[in-house]
Amino acid sequence: MKNNQQPSGMPIAKYAPFQDQISVDLPDRTWPGKVITEAPRWCAVDLRDGNQALIDPMNRERKLRMFQLLVQMGYKEIEVGFPSASQTDFDFVRALIEEDHIPDDVTIQVLTQARDHLIERTYDSIAGAKQAIVHLYNSTSVLQRRVVFDKDQDGIIDIALQGARLCRKLEETIPQTAITYEYSPESYTGTELEFAARICNEVAAVFEASPDRPMIVNLPATVEMSTPNVYADSIEWMCRNLERRDSTIVSLHPHNDRGTGVAAAELGYLAGADRIEGCLFGNGERTGNVCLVTLGLNLFSQGVDPQIDFSDIDHIRRTVEHCNQLPVAERHPYGGDLVFTAFSGSHQDAIKKGFDDMERQSKATGKEINELVWGVPYLPVDPHDLGRSYEAVVRVNSQSGKGGVAYLMRSEYGLDLPRRLQIELSGVVQERTDAQGGEMSATALWEAFSDEYLPGSNGDGAGWGRFVPGTLRSSGDPDGSDHIWATIYDHGRELTIEGTGNGPLSAFIDALSTIGVDVRILDYSEHTMSLGEDAQAAAYIECAIGGRVLWGVGIHSSTMRSSTMAILSAVNRAERDNVTTGSIPVSRPGGGP
Amino acid sequence: MKNNQQPSGMPIAKYAPFQDQISVDLPDRTWPGKVITEAPRWCAVDLRDGNQALIDPMNRERKLRMFQLLVQMGYKEIEVGFPSASQTDFDFVRALIEEDHIPDDVTIQVLTQARDHLIERTYDSIAGAKQAIVHLYNSTSVLQRRVVFDKDQDGIIDIALQGARLCRKLEETIPQTAITYEYSPESYTGTELEFAARICNEVAAVFEASPDRPMIVNLPATVEMSTPNVYADSIEWMCRNLERRDSTIVSLHPHNDRGTGVAAAELGYLAGADRIEGCLFGNGERTGNVCLVTLGLNLFSQGVDPQIDFSDIDHIRRTVEHCNQLPVAERHPYGGDLVFTAFSGSHQDAIKKGFDDMERQSKATGKEINELVWGVPYLPVDPHDLGRSYEAVVRVNSQSGKGGVAYLMRSEYGLDLPRRLQIELSGVVQERTDAQGGEMSATALWEAFSDEYLPGSNGDGAGWGRFVPGTLRSSGDPDGSDHIWATIYDHGRELTIEGTGNGPLSAFIDALSTIGVDVRILDYSEHTMSLGEDAQAAAYIECAIGGRVLWGVGIHSSTMRSSTMAILSAVNRAERDNVTTGSIPVSRPGGGP
Repeated sequence: MKNNQQPSGMPIAKYAPFQDQISVDLPDRTWPGKVITEAPRWCAVDLRDGNQALIDPMNRERKLRMFQLLVQMGYKEIEVGFPSASQTDFDFVRALIEEDHIPDDVTIQVLTQARDHLIERTYDSIAGAKQAIVHLYNSTSVLQRRVVFDKDQDGIIDIALQGARLCRKLEETIPQTAITYEYSPESYTGTELEFAARICNEVAAVFEASPDRPMIVNLPATVEMSTPNVYADSIEWMCRNLERRDSTIVSLHPHNDRGTGVAAAELGYLAGADRIEGCLFGNGERTGNVCLVTLGLNLFSQGVDPQIDFSDIDHIRRTVEHCNQLPVAERHPYGGDLVFTAFSGSHQDAIKKGFDDMERQSKATGKEINELVWGVPYLPVDPHDLGRSYEAVVRVNSQSGKGGVAYLMRSEYGLDLPRRLQIELSGVVQERTDAQGGEMSATALWEAFSDEYLPGSNGDGAGWGRFVPGTLRSSGDPDGSDHIWATIYDHGRELTIEGTGNGPLSAFIDALSTIGVDVRILDYSEHTMSLGEDAQAAAYIECAIGGRVLWGVGIHSSTMRSSTMAILSAVNRAERDNVTTGSIPVSRPGGGP
Repeated sequence: MKNNQQPSGMPIAKYAPFQDQISVDLPDRTWPGKVITEAPRWCAVDLRDGNQALIDPMNRERKLRMFQLLVQMGYKEIEVGFPSASQTDFDFVRALIEEDHIPDDVTIQVLTQARDHLIERTYDSIAGAKQAIVHLYNSTSVLQRRVVFDKDQDGIIDIALQGARLCRKLEETIPQTAITYEYSPESYTGTELEFAARICNEVAAVFEASPDRPMIVNLPATVEMSTPNVYADSIEWMCRNLERRDSTIVSLHPHNDRGTGVAAAELGYLAGADRIEGCLFGNGERTGNVCLVTLGLNLFSQGVDPQIDFSDIDHIRRTVEHCNQLPVAERHPYGGDLVFTAFSGSHQDAIKKGFDDMERQSKATGKEINELVWGVPYLPVDPHDLGRSYEAVVRVNSQSGKGGVAYLMRSEYGLDLPRRLQIELSGVVQERTDAQGGEMSATALWEAFSDEYLPGSNGDGAGWGRFVPGTLRSSGDPDGSDHIWATIYDHGRELTIEGTGNGPLSAFIDALSTIGVDVRILDYSEHTMSLGEDAQAAAYIECAIGGRVLWGVGIHSSTMRSSTMAILSAVNRAERDNVTTGSIPVSRPGGGP
């Protein structure tokens, strides 16, 4: 079969291949024969490289939540800002130190360009910390030397050495803080290797790096410029050519311009690096930094302890989304909404057989399933290890053949369901499809949805389950707190409950807690369904109730009412026995490589 | 500095490292010394692997748009479905053939499991096509052999050979269609290499693969199970061990479970493969297939012609988002909203100097800028080559230090701006900041926003520019078409225009075209700002007008009115001279590796 592809007409002549710019020649490379057997040292740079690339940078509250999340997960080296570039960063570093937020075994890291006044300000920012990494950088690439700095190699080295010398001097002004140095030849991937080694070696001499007091040499793919094997070759070359290798922690800092940041980190680590800098879910300049979640869980899937706790991936993700105000993509490895789903019948069938086999093994050996070697097709890790669950998603086509559940809910009923609710609903629908057989009409879909999520929508109050909502009254104080009084019927018995919170919803949650109903809100969204006098709002709330996660829905002209109804919808669902959370369906065709 | 990392407590013992499952031993590998110098054969599988992993699978309209997009971009091999698994897929393949949608130089590909009745149905689906690739698969991994099929190696080979033999037989029933065969040992990455080679060789014998009539052997990373260098080793091993290598097109089909699908494709291609299957923006099961956009533009950035036209990446992206009903992530290489932005002052400064240098070179040599070698820091490719532009994003902090533009617009004014409008607005705001100096208050931000996007919002009709809206009347026909009558003032002159479309908005666009104003809608979103009698809706519309792309905004209690106002807002902005589309700001600190 002939290859019919044609020239695209795109202006390829204006791009010089990487190998024509930078020579990386290492025929005796050893990294491709190696295997990763332990976790690298991690450094999380979400609060610096991640934060500086946000349209809305984090405020103090979001910064502190990110810091606490990273600490809680187990990161011990955390770049907390570029204090000399931003007053917000400076103030945050001071607050971390003065308000005693830094555990004894955690080292904060601060970035500074090699410029005198910036270095001075940097040292001001870390005074009083028990320990800190001072991360010094200047740009070294062929392009930046010519275009940005108009300096030769010696001139660029002078910048670095002058910065390093000032650091040494200022170090004496804060003797109570144990300083570790990190140096980055920024834009390393565009730098000749010989020059990169030379500048790192000269800086290491100023810092007097020694086995007792090693320094970090960070080799950033500031811009990813080649396939990841070339980056790995360059790292192995550098490891051989750093004069104080035994006094150096070699660190990687891959960006993701070519979509191969994770590979660059993994192959660079095989090539001899000791440490990796990155961000949760790959936030950072342009295409982002390498994703620490993916790197960590890639280790986990190979039986290597990441030394980071990913056991509640949804909590991590929600916190990151809150701090960054950017969503995690549906297909992001390990954390995306769709990565533990199976849509095709043959995949679902194979997964079911995998689960069955593990149960058989468990019975035969008397071992717990968690003691067996994981082996379920299409699921590289057990979703439960990350606090998630496997979802077999059944697509329901309407009789008009126009699309699936989410499409019909939107086009026929004006409801724009959040992605995870779509997945949950598909389980509900699937149970009915299995029971009734065949395809489902839009009307039958609506019945399934409203029976499950909107009890009482037929107006007679029936079907609500344990709790039926009554009247609702609220007041807001000038200080921003809200108080709520609600009448609800608990198994028919009228109760009046009240609560306080920083919004009507949290006040209602507080009120429920007074009768022993504990609800934690994980996700929340609402939208209006129409305009004008009879406007209706739909509220969708994902709740954690008694160790389970499930959605509730409320529709009402008052948003306060629709959201409290959504909470009760979730609570009542949790109280019912047969709530669907993704069971295994019958086999259907489809699938493939 | 001590490494303080601690064991995570995660259950690592249940995972077997890849090297304990499958042995890939190739110490004399040659791929790490190679460089990519030409495009592979591409096969786009969006309509099969991509489509089957959607919550809402594509309907006929979306399928056809995807097919036409792929053809228009230059893909010559397109997997169009799994016709035996789904009536929708079957009907779509028939429609492609019977309605003559397939250009002569494009080959459709159809997937089938190696099961008799599925193969028969597959041949029914392609009758009448000029040429087709029949893609046969069965699962070969150690795990699936045991858990799903309960067969030994010979039993699995029997399944493949019986399927291949039936294909040969059915081939005779449609002699007018030139068939090329493709075989996938599905779950190849979990298959012993010796067995994978054996089954491929035996299938190739049944297909009588020859240099004149080669077959495709596709080696899918159905699940990504190891670092990408191991996949590359396996591909080089297979290339050495396929008996009919000169009659075989070796194809890759990487998934992205470990976030290294792009690297696996690139290293596997270095290792000797000829062809790559993937999806635009990496749609597909779980974490998706390898992204064809990233792969193609990675080649482009190295001066290698991808043989695919990516010159209007936003059009490609919008079409893909429409077809898949999934957003492309903000940081997706080459296509995400944020990948050609620079937030930090030092990056912006370096980029500005890079542009300046290219202009200097252009003047010095008398060459066009497009004839020079591209060299702008932090921009691996010229965004204009993809139909995009570089955006220097200035973050504006309110005096309360609470956050940036988007945050303030949402928290203070209830407007939830689409991401690309946020970026456009930051340019508008920046011009004012530069003019006025310092930080911007929320009130000043609102003034900048409403002056630019919401003329007439002070109630006197002033500031609208060329067009001022008057009365609006519309009617909808039972057939779904809408008709609109609008009064507008063109430089103060009252005009009545009318138009028809499949919605009020397209009717309004149609009406505008009658007076020579051509608008194409690229993106649209709206939300309500409040509930009750005085409910207001905000509409945001991204328009292409006279070769430029810009946003308009409208706010009104009627959604029809807010959206037509948004159109006029964009049209009036396009008519003004000084519309900002991302100029270069003054230098600020920040930046780093």
